[in-house]
Amino acid sequence: MKIIVYFSVFASIFILGLFQESVQGRPLLTSLPRPRPDDAAAFARWLVSQSSWGVLNTISSDWGGAPFGNVVSFSDGLPDKGKGVPYFYLTALDPTASYAMKDQRSSFTISEYNIGTCGKKDPENPTCAKITLIGKLKLVEGSSKEDEFARTALFTKHPEMKTWPKSHNFQVFKLDIENIFMINWYGGPKPLTVEQYLNAKMNKFTFIADTTA
Amino acid sequence: MKIIVYFSVFASIFILGLFQESVQGRPLLTSLPRPRPDDAAAFARWLVSQSSWGVLNTISSDWGGAPFGNVVSFSDGLPDKGKGVPYFYLTALDPTASYAMKDQRSSFTISEYNIGTCGKKDPENPTCAKITLIGKLKLVEGSSKEDEFARTALFTKHPEMKTWPKSHNFQVFKLDIENIFMINWYGGPKPLTVEQYLNAKMNKFTFIADTTA
Repeated sequence: MKIIVYFSVFASIFILGLFQESVQGRPLLTSLPRPRPDDAAAFARWLVSQSSWGVLNTISSDWGGAPFGNVVSFSDGLPDKGKGVPYFYLTALDPTASYAMKDQRSSFTISEYNIGTCGKKDPENPTCAKITLIGKLKLVEGSSKEDEFARTALFTKHPEMKTWPKSHNFQVFKLDIENIFMINWYGGPKPLTVEQYLNAKMNKFTFIADTTA
Repeated sequence: MKIIVYFSVFASIFILGLFQESVQGRPLLTSLPRPRPDDAAAFARWLVSQSSWGVLNTISSDWGGAPFGNVVSFSDGLPDKGKGVPYFYLTALDPTASYAMKDQRSSFTISEYNIGTCGKKDPENPTCAKITLIGKLKLVEGSSKEDEFARTALFTKHPEMKTWPKSHNFQVFKLDIENIFMINWYGGPKPLTVEQYLNAKMNKFTFIADTTA
């Protein structure tokens, strides 16, 4: 009987601990450990592949050419097998896709805060990582191999998309990345080329725990 | 002894239930109930006042004039006493503030997904609300009454800001809202003027539970 009591009390405390962790910070939504912040390429690829949504920015053709941010879901590949290029499932009924058809200049912004690995840090704290991929937002040719890859990537991470109304004519778009802006530590944005980013090996040896997190 | 056992087991199950809720959805970070989606003004004010961060967009003066989104924290007032105008604490060491000094056109995008009231809906689902406030990003005059109000609003919601390095010369900026784009239900963006938004009464009677959430 004593053992059961001890076990139950221990279980309560343990589970309470988990719960508090998830509320004080954010629920952990990452399935791979956080890379070292100084491994910029691996870190950026991890941040993109572990995220499921962000803000996609285009130049508005109304509103006086203002930059227009829109909340969108995305995928860069199957879970834990991301390739680094974000794909989107958009309808021209939404302004983002129609703006991009007129002016492809675009950026896509993701916060590590969403993944749940920022602990109690403020979302604007430089050690709670943020990445903005800058480039051109392009329509992916329908029924191409890339379209097929992107649809599998998107529908696996966002099963709900498969049920979205056909009449809205959702199409696959991708961001052709030209520049990368990432802050994941003190001292300003990390130097990181698109080539380094796309060729980063998601090697398990880069995944050393950040003890300051 | 039996009572202790029952209590411990019950506590374990209860706490486990809470934990699962917070992981399957998101932790609930809102302190006021969700307004009815058809009360556009109240809904928008609730979404802004209950959020703590978003993506602030400016026109980049490098990167070929691309729209540049940046993760920032903000506040529109003391908790549950927001006035609707988002204030930011930015340094010109970061591109967003320096871009805004050259071109004030800007937008600020927030997702309801962050608040934890979207349940299992995809972040791109129209019933998981998103709002983009479009306008001009302006520096607030230092030591003015507005600057004082904004600092109190910011530091109360983001205590960490008070400790940020003085050498970085953080200053208060605000978004002068000119247009509002909000989707919180099917059927496209909700008609909502800036006047309706700013004058919305955060009346408790608008807070009727959305049973479809």
